[in-house]
This record gives sequence, C-alpha cells and structure tokens, in this order.
Amino acid sequence: MGQQEIIDDSPESGIKVLDRTVLVLNVIAEQPRSLAELAAATDLPRATAHRLASALEVHGMLARSRDNRWTIGARLASLGARGADTLIDTAVPIMTELMERTGESVQLYRLTGTTRTCVASQEPQSGLKNVVPVGTRMPLNAGSAARVFAAYLPIASADAFSREELDHVRATGLAESVGERELGLASLSSPVFDSNGSMIAALSISGVAERLKPHPAAMWGTELIDAAERLGALL
Amino acid sequence: MGQQEIIDDSPESGIKVLDRTVLVLNVIAEQPRSLAELAAATDLPRATAHRLASALEVHGMLARSRDNRWTIGARLASLGARGADTLIDTAVPIMTELMERTGESVQLYRLTGTTRTCVASQEPQSGLKNVVPVGTRMPLNAGSAARVFAAYLPIASADAFSREELDHVRATGLAESVGERELGLASLSSPVFDSNGSMIAALSISGVAERLKPHPAAMWGTELIDAAERLGALL
Repeated sequence: MGQQEIIDDSPESGIKVLDRTVLVLNVIAEQPRSLAELAAATDLPRATAHRLASALEVHGMLARSRDNRWTIGARLASLGARGADTLIDTAVPIMTELMERTGESVQLYRLTGTTRTCVASQEPQSGLKNVVPVGTRMPLNAGSAARVFAAYLPIASADAFSREELDHVRATGLAESVGERELGLASLSSPVFDSNGSMIAALSISGVAERLKPHPAAMWGTELIDAAERLGALL
Repeated sequence: MGQQEIIDDSPESGIKVLDRTVLVLNVIAEQPRSLAELAAATDLPRATAHRLASALEVHGMLARSRDNRWTIGARLASLGARGADTLIDTAVPIMTELMERTGESVQLYRLTGTTRTCVASQEPQSGLKNVVPVGTRMPLNAGSAARVFAAYLPIASADAFSREELDHVRATGLAESVGERELGLASLSSPVFDSNGSMIAALSISGVAERLKPHPAAMWGTELIDAAERLGALL
C-alpha cells in the first residue's frame, strides 16, 4: 500500500455524491487543504470540490483554518469520538493478553492531526517498564509507531524516514526503534487495519532495550502481528 | 434546545444527498440504530435510509453491530481523531486560565458512545485537588458534566435526571453536582457549542465541596460560562 492508498482504494457505493463526499473528508483528514489542493488531491473539478467542501462546512463537518484551508470540523471530531469507544473496547483485552505474554508495556496509537495519540495502554504492574498515559501525544517523526503511520498514511513527516525503511515496514508489517526517543527504550509497532483495509491505529510493544535483544522484531514480531491482526478482524 | 435538536436544527447545504448523509451520521452517532429506527429518526423513506447507511458502511464510516444496528465505523472514528487536536489545542490555554483563576481542577469532556471521556485536564500543581487523567471515561448518569450532555443531547441515560433539573441546566447553561460521584467532591459544568450551534463538549470545574460553597454555580458560574463561550467562539 503506497502513499496514495486512501485515494486509490476509495470504494464505490453507487451513490456518487456520497462517494465524493467521503473522498473529500478523507483527503482533508490527511492534511488541511486549500481549494486548489483539494481539487488536485481528489481529482474533482474545482467547482465540485468547492461545492462539496462548502456544504460540509455548513454542517460543521469541515472548518476553515486561518490560512483559508479546510480542516476537520468540530462536529466530525465529535461524531468520531462517539465511535472511538469501539476501537478501545475491542483492543483492551487483546492488549492485556499481549502485555501478559511479553511482560512489556503495550500501547495503541491513533493519528490525531500532526501527532499520534496513545488511546489505550496496558502496562505490567511492577518493575522496569515504559509508561505512556492515555492521552499522551507523541511526534510523528520518531519512534516505531511513527514509522507505521508514515509507511501506510500520506503524512507530511514521512520524510523523516528513508524510503527503504518504510518499504521494509510495509513488507514485514513491523517497525522498530531502539534508543531513538529515549535512551535505553526500544519499541516495536504494527499497523491495525479495519475490515475495509483502512489503517486506523498502530499497536506497539515498548520496554527496556536490553530486554528486547537481539532486536524487538526478532523478540516479539510474531506475537505483535498476531495481536494486531486479531484486533483488525474485529473492527 | 430540546431532545431532538440535532435533527431539527440540521442545516441545509443545497446538496440533498449530502444533507441526508450527514443526517444519517448524526442520528447514528447519537445511538446505534436498526433500519426501522434510522428511518424513524431521520424521517427518511426506509429505502433511502437503507441506501445511504449501506453506502456509508461500504466506506467504513458506519459499521454493523452484532444486533444488526448501524454504529459509527472505525474509519469515521479515525477521521474524527484527526480533528480532535483542534478542540484540545484551542481549549488548553482557556482551561489553564480558568484553573489559575479558580484554583480548581478544570476538565473538558466529550461524549464517547455510552460514556463521557476527559479529553483535556488542567490541575493546580499542589494541594487538595480533584485529579482526572486525560482518557478517563465517566458515566453519563452522574456528575455535573453528565447533566450537561443529558440536557443538550438525546442520550439514553438522560432518564437519570429529572425534567426540571435538565430544564434548569438549559435555562442557566450550568449544571452542578455535590458529593454525587464521590464524597466531598463537587463540580460545575457548562456546555461548549461550536459555531454551528452543535453541543460538542462539556467544560467543568471540580474540587473540594467545602471550597465551592454556598454552591458551585454561585461560586464560579460566571467564570465558567465565560470560558465555555470563549472556547466555543473559536471552534
């Protein structure tokens, strides 16, 4: 799946206006867009793109940023929040199992604008462990989960990683980082795809680098991919 | 604003299919709906409701629950998450100011399915204070923020409160609770409306009941409403 997956993979429902509306929401969720950028990204005529985005703005599904780009509106953010429970409720038992099996902290990250946010977290009760409170926002240019978002979604900070590195993530379904964000900390992340094939979250294991030798993927790669796939199958 | 505000207030953009699509998303975000319930809530013909919801399901914007009701889909939850940053980024400076002015903890709650979730939190650095970590999910049938959601949104647990109480919340823009969820804890909440008039969050002050005498609204009502309005004006 390449940088344009959201657009190329956009399914058709048989209702053209609805398909185009969803397309507009998807490309604006990737990043704020001016009219010209929106028309280019959706391949829609400028007038059509303008008409759809303006209509979505009337409903609060989109909003205008100060530089006159369309962004995700408060109303859409609110609708989405009502659905977020499902992802978290589904993830928690799988994350608990993975935490118990590996003895390491397990996190679930979602893309939130220009950051990733930890939306669920399971940590061993005691001992040397990595602690990421729910709600923590992390950068998209460092850490294994950032590589997962960069590999599967067209985010601007994907430039932080080499093409080879992201190709490797797509080929294996795994991204690693060792001592990158924090000395002595290593992590391993895998993408979670929903039943439509949309990449919607990154599932991560993180802990003391010394314990994840020779490297995190060799240690827990199979277990992590299995958990991410089981979660995706339930979404 | 009554229990049906989302539906009655639904604006018209001039694109009928888009307006109906947004209407379907809105009523399903309120609560999962069967086809019959969806048709009734939207006032759309059964065939139209089915066609729109099925098309949204193709895009992952809606999903089917085990009891064959449509719910918010993982894709929509994911789009919304990318917009949630805006609300939080806008709220934090206003919340910090309110926390400094009142000396009490300040929280921002959003409706997430059948719970409310604390999405931002500002707490005094020291002393006796109420602590609500970001990500905490709370009930919708207790506490002042629950009353705010019940007063403005058609949620099932609104039954937990009397009609008079919710009318009072709508008349004053304030809800109180004293020693309800936790002994010695009091809180005061006010709705946050975006520029489309949609109620999208509840802003709360909470702390030791003893300090919020004679009652929370008398103590900090003006300050809280002012902060909630300033936040809404920026959304």
